[in-house]
Amino acid sequence: MAAPVIAVIGGGQLARMMAPAAGALGVHLRVLVESADSSAAQLVVDAPVGAASDEQAVRDLVRGVDVLTFEHEHVSDDLLHDLVRSGVPVHPGPHALLQAQDKIVMRRRLTELGAPCPRWAELSRDPATARTELAGFLAAARDGSAVVKTSRGGYDGKGVRVVRSPEEVDDWFAGVAAGGPTLLVEEKVPFARELAVLVARSPSGEVRTWPVVESVQRDGVCAEVVAPAPGLTAAEAERAREVATRIAERLDITGVLAVEMFEVRGAEGSEPEILVNELAMRPHNSGHWTIDGSVTSQFEQHLRAVLDLPLGDTAPTAPWTVMVNVLGSGLDELTDALPGVLGQFPDARVNLYGKAVRPGRKLAHVNVSGTDLDDVRSRARAAAALLRGE
Amino acid sequence: MAAPVIAVIGGGQLARMMAPAAGALGVHLRVLVESADSSAAQLVVDAPVGAASDEQAVRDLVRGVDVLTFEHEHVSDDLLHDLVRSGVPVHPGPHALLQAQDKIVMRRRLTELGAPCPRWAELSRDPATARTELAGFLAAARDGSAVVKTSRGGYDGKGVRVVRSPEEVDDWFAGVAAGGPTLLVEEKVPFARELAVLVARSPSGEVRTWPVVESVQRDGVCAEVVAPAPGLTAAEAERAREVATRIAERLDITGVLAVEMFEVRGAEGSEPEILVNELAMRPHNSGHWTIDGSVTSQFEQHLRAVLDLPLGDTAPTAPWTVMVNVLGSGLDELTDALPGVLGQFPDARVNLYGKAVRPGRKLAHVNVSGTDLDDVRSRARAAAALLRGE
Repeated sequence: MAAPVIAVIGGGQLARMMAPAAGALGVHLRVLVESADSSAAQLVVDAPVGAASDEQAVRDLVRGVDVLTFEHEHVSDDLLHDLVRSGVPVHPGPHALLQAQDKIVMRRRLTELGAPCPRWAELSRDPATARTELAGFLAAARDGSAVVKTSRGGYDGKGVRVVRSPEEVDDWFAGVAAGGPTLLVEEKVPFARELAVLVARSPSGEVRTWPVVESVQRDGVCAEVVAPAPGLTAAEAERAREVATRIAERLDITGVLAVEMFEVRGAEGSEPEILVNELAMRPHNSGHWTIDGSVTSQFEQHLRAVLDLPLGDTAPTAPWTVMVNVLGSGLDELTDALPGVLGQFPDARVNLYGKAVRPGRKLAHVNVSGTDLDDVRSRARAAAALLRGE
Repeated sequence: MAAPVIAVIGGGQLARMMAPAAGALGVHLRVLVESADSSAAQLVVDAPVGAASDEQAVRDLVRGVDVLTFEHEHVSDDLLHDLVRSGVPVHPGPHALLQAQDKIVMRRRLTELGAPCPRWAELSRDPATARTELAGFLAAARDGSAVVKTSRGGYDGKGVRVVRSPEEVDDWFAGVAAGGPTLLVEEKVPFARELAVLVARSPSGEVRTWPVVESVQRDGVCAEVVAPAPGLTAAEAERAREVATRIAERLDITGVLAVEMFEVRGAEGSEPEILVNELAMRPHNSGHWTIDGSVTSQFEQHLRAVLDLPLGDTAPTAPWTVMVNVLGSGLDELTDALPGVLGQFPDARVNLYGKAVRPGRKLAHVNVSGTDLDDVRSRARAAAALLRGE
C-alpha cells in the first residue's frame, strides 16, 4: 500500500502544526490554504490555494485521498454529505460536524444525551417574538444578564454577546430576519474557572482523553492553559472526562474533540458542578500544551484518529505544562524576539505560526514544563511577553 | 527584520528532521535536495533540486540566506571558502568542516590538541611504501589486525576495512596511486562499547552538551542508542563531555558536533579510557533520541546554533530513552506497519523518513522513553522489528 494521504481544509496554524506529526508518521498531507503564504502553506509541500467555500477546490483537494479532515468547521454540510455519498471518508463526519457548526443543534443534542449544559433557549426568527423571548429569559436570569449567540459562524469570541436588554442585539435580530443564522440565548454562568477536556476517538471506537486542563480566556480568546487543571479532585476530573467521552461517543465524533467547560463552585465542601460550554471537532488551542507536555500531541492523535490508526499514549511528560498564547505583538516580526526569549528561557518551547502581526491575532504560543507551577507559569508568561514585544 | 532563512545542503532524513524545528522557530528552510521526492523534499516547501557538487546550484541556494549549513560533509572546500569570502555565513565553517571531511586532517588536529585517539598513521601515496608502512603497523598491533580508512568520502561503514595483511587493501592502494584519497591506518581498539557525545556550539561561543549516550553499531551503521549511557561514572561522563567540548572549541566548530568514542576498560577498579573515533559536524544518528527525550532536540539546536541564537536546554525529559534504527525492511511501505506498531506500543515515538525500501537503508527510527531501561529497550526493539516487517 502507498503511504496514506490526508486532506485538510484550512491553512492556519492548526493545519501547520499537523505537518510535523504527518512527517513523523510518513503520511502525506494535502492542505487547502486560503493563500500561498498562509501559516500552513509555509510548512506543507502539497498546499493548493482555494477557499473552503469553493466546491470545486474541495473536490480537487479530495481526489485520491484516504480521508478528509478539517482545521475549522466552516464548510458546507451539503458538500460534505455529497462527498461521503461518493465514497470519500470524511472525519469527523458531517452528521457530527454539524454539532460544532450549529450551536442550537449542539445544545439540543447535548440536552438529549444528558450532558450538563447552561440553561438555554432558541430564539424565534421573528424579531418581535425573539425580543419577547429574550426579555423573558433575562427577567429570569440571576443577575439580569445573559449570553446571546449566533447559531453559526462564531469563533474566538465572535458571534457571542453578553446582554442586559434585547435592544443590544437588535442588529442580530435584523440579520436573522434577513436570512442570517438564528440566535440562541444562554444563562451567563457564574463560573469559578474554565476547564477543557480534549478527547480523541477513532472510527473504530477507540477513545483517549488527555488530563483535564484549566483554560483562561481573554475577550473570548484562549490566552493561557494550565495542564493539568490545578486543584481538581480525582472525582471531578473523572466526571469531566466521562462527559467528554460520552459526547464523543454519542455524537459519533472522530478525530480530536475539545470540550470547553465551566466549573461552578457551590457551597463549601460540595463538589463543583461542570457545564459544557462549547465543542470544537479538531485540534484546539486548549491542546497546544500536548506538543511538548504529552507523549502524543493532539495533532498526531488527530491524524491517527482520522486514519483509524491506533491512538497514542496521552500521559503528561512533566508534572506541569503551561501554554501561553501570543495574541498580537508590538514587534514587526516575532523572530526578532528570538535572541531575547531563547536566551532568557532556555527551556521554553517557542512555536511561531509564521503570520503577519495584527492586533489580537494568534501569532504564536509558548510551552513551559516543570515541577513548580508558579515558576512554570511565570516563565511561560514572561516568554510570551517578550514575543509580544513587551 | 524578516524571518531568518537557513540554506541546507543535502535532502536526506537529517534535513527532513530540521523542518519541524524550523517551523516552530518561524525560520525559513531552503534545502538543496538530490531529487524532488527525496526525504527532505517531502517536508520542505522551498527545496530546489540539485547536486551538492553543482557549484551553480549551491550559489543559487545561498542567494539572500542568513546562513548556509549542511546535513553531510561532502561539499567542495574551495566553493565554501569562496562563499565565505563573498560574505555568506557558512556554519560550520570550511576550516572546521575539513576535519570531518578528511580523517587524516582530523587525526592530526586531534593529536595536536591532546584529545585521546587510537594509535594511527598516515600511509604514503606510493603503493610500495604504503604496503611496508602498513605491514609495520600490523606487526606492532596487539592482535595482528588494524583498521584502514580512506581519508575522504567514507560514511556509515563505507571506506573502512579491518585488515590483517596489506594485500587486503591492494585495490585502495591502486586507487590512491590513481589520484584517489590517501589512506590512514588505525589501531583496532579492543573497546568495551561505543559512546557518543553530542555538543552544540554557536559562533558566539556558547556551548551545550547532551548526556553521553551508548551507541551500538551494526556493520558500521548506528543501530541503537541508549541515553544516557548505562553505568557511566560521573567522572567518565564529565571526561567525555570535556573532550567533546574541547574539540568543538579548539576546532572552532559551529552547529551540532557528534563525537563518537570508544570506551576501553582496563583492570578491575581502574577508570575506563576514552578514545575519539569519528567526528560529524551536523545532527547525527546518535542524537535522534533528543527529538523525544530531551527538552531541545539536536535539530532545533543546530538551527539555533548556526543562526547564533541562544542554545536550548539539553536536559533529558525521562530517565531513559532508547532509539532503535530501522535499517531495511521486509515491507513494501513502512506505513503498512503503523496499525501494528502504534497498536502494540502506544507510547513509541515512530519517525518514518519517507524513503523507498532498500536493504540496509536507514528508513526510520523509533524512540521509547521510560523509567525501566530493560523494558524501554525491549519495547523500542520490538517496535522497530515491526517496522522491519518482522
